[in-house]
Amino acid sequence: MKKILVIGGDGFIGKNVVHYFNNNDLEIPPKIVILSRKLNEKETETTQVEFCYGDFSDINILTNLFSKYQFDAVFHFANTTVPSAAQDTNVQDIYENVVPSIQLMDVMRQYHCNMLLYLSSGGAVYGNSTEILNEEHVCHPISSYGIAKLTVENYIQLYHRLFGLDYLILRLSNPFGKYHTSSKQGIVNIAIRNALRGVPINVWGTGNQTKDYIFVDDIAKVISELFYKGVKNEIFNIGAGHSISLNEILKTIGNLIPNVEICYQESKVTDVGFFRLDITKLKRYIGFEPSDLNMGILKTIEWERKEMK
Amino acid sequence: MKKILVIGGDGFIGKNVVHYFNNNDLEIPPKIVILSRKLNEKETETTQVEFCYGDFSDINILTNLFSKYQFDAVFHFANTTVPSAAQDTNVQDIYENVVPSIQLMDVMRQYHCNMLLYLSSGGAVYGNSTEILNEEHVCHPISSYGIAKLTVENYIQLYHRLFGLDYLILRLSNPFGKYHTSSKQGIVNIAIRNALRGVPINVWGTGNQTKDYIFVDDIAKVISELFYKGVKNEIFNIGAGHSISLNEILKTIGNLIPNVEICYQESKVTDVGFFRLDITKLKRYIGFEPSDLNMGILKTIEWERKEMK
Repeated sequence: MKKILVIGGDGFIGKNVVHYFNNNDLEIPPKIVILSRKLNEKETETTQVEFCYGDFSDINILTNLFSKYQFDAVFHFANTTVPSAAQDTNVQDIYENVVPSIQLMDVMRQYHCNMLLYLSSGGAVYGNSTEILNEEHVCHPISSYGIAKLTVENYIQLYHRLFGLDYLILRLSNPFGKYHTSSKQGIVNIAIRNALRGVPINVWGTGNQTKDYIFVDDIAKVISELFYKGVKNEIFNIGAGHSISLNEILKTIGNLIPNVEICYQESKVTDVGFFRLDITKLKRYIGFEPSDLNMGILKTIEWERKEMK
Repeated sequence: MKKILVIGGDGFIGKNVVHYFNNNDLEIPPKIVILSRKLNEKETETTQVEFCYGDFSDINILTNLFSKYQFDAVFHFANTTVPSAAQDTNVQDIYENVVPSIQLMDVMRQYHCNMLLYLSSGGAVYGNSTEILNEEHVCHPISSYGIAKLTVENYIQLYHRLFGLDYLILRLSNPFGKYHTSSKQGIVNIAIRNALRGVPINVWGTGNQTKDYIFVDDIAKVISELFYKGVKNEIFNIGAGHSISLNEILKTIGNLIPNVEICYQESKVTDVGFFRLDITKLKRYIGFEPSDLNMGILKTIEWERKEMK
């Protein structure tokens, strides 16, 4: 049985991955320990999933966990900042995300835990580009959030080279779906939430910016498949592999929820105008096909509606 | 008259640049303030060059300096680590080089100082590549030193985008020449020093690794020309634009100094095996032509010989 430490397992992607690992009839489901900064999560603890309260920047907590469980892998989904707040978080991104990630790898080395799965970000790491982006594309991050992600990626690859640490780096496009409760990022969920509540949806720019949106169930499935296939020491784009305008997304939402109101606002400097990931590599490794977007939106509406109750 | 803060002005490149600015009949030589971690440098103070003792990571020192002098530009040559020690300096690189560089830009913004010249590193930032590297090449840094340099580059470009800070980022090849007193990096100077003292020269690997070596006088000239031409918001490779094997360098040194002894050692994992910068962009902007390598080595021998006395 694999033992996995999931850092940020209480966040949007983390929750979905843990949920997937425990509800998909894996032959031998892993033992998961979630390191969480939220106290209340403990209530949903099961024999397969344990919660530990604490911050991953705390080396003592890490060493205690690693000495108690001999983890086979770490899934690192934590990030303390979001791209849109990047203007004010430069040094914070370094202290809270880059440094603790390096310290984490040092603890992993110490306890011979040799597999790190790191959640990076496609849009934030590649930056603005009119090209379809594959994993070898030059990176021009345009936010502190993106610079920090790229820096952590670079350190992970350094630790692979110097100390043999195995890794998977996943550059995500724009995810949406269940457990995406942020009010700061994730336009699809926010739009659905507002629409359900009859609140106007703020759109920065014309709404014609096209991006690559991915349903979170696909991400959880991809992570599970890559992990159990033993794929390692690779960077993967994870996205739909095609881009769609925000206005089209909103039209789809509008077809499913009546009386959607949209307010167009001036665009922010950190916003990416066009964005599309090349997912050829992912398809080659695990034969990935993204879910139908409308189905994903419909399922997300169902989840957001249930959450309102 | 321009007022320039030179951080790391007591180091190898910094000293050469300050020396160049004060000895080349510039119509209006700049006022230079050197921020130095070495106390004894104060002795060589002139009306044009002032020394200030302190660390650039100390925000109080920076704000005091910026409020006293209204600097037009900052030349940032400081780095607390060297590539060869990278294995042990991961978090140190972040704390001592990345964070203070971000803080520096915050102080610059506060005092409306709008030009930052940053000394980066070609070999460390691009990493191992068999290609001739232009400034648009994808970066795969293979040391903590290189990751930190690249991260600072990314933050500089972020500050340009967000706050309009002007910059010049200079990616240097392997420099040699006067004032290069390090015993840890700079194979040309170290080899000459050992040869003059009759000490064996350690070579990591076969000595067939080819690199791009540049004489430091060229660097000082390039920086002066770029700065006074008002070139800004660009990244430049600064190198010879051709590569030569270490064995050839050592042969040249051997022709000038008798009885040179060479010890071949096992190569280190952070070493770059082939390295050559494309300097087309630099040539296009300022018509740069690198000095003759043998002349540079001869001048360096003269300087090292004088230092021995």
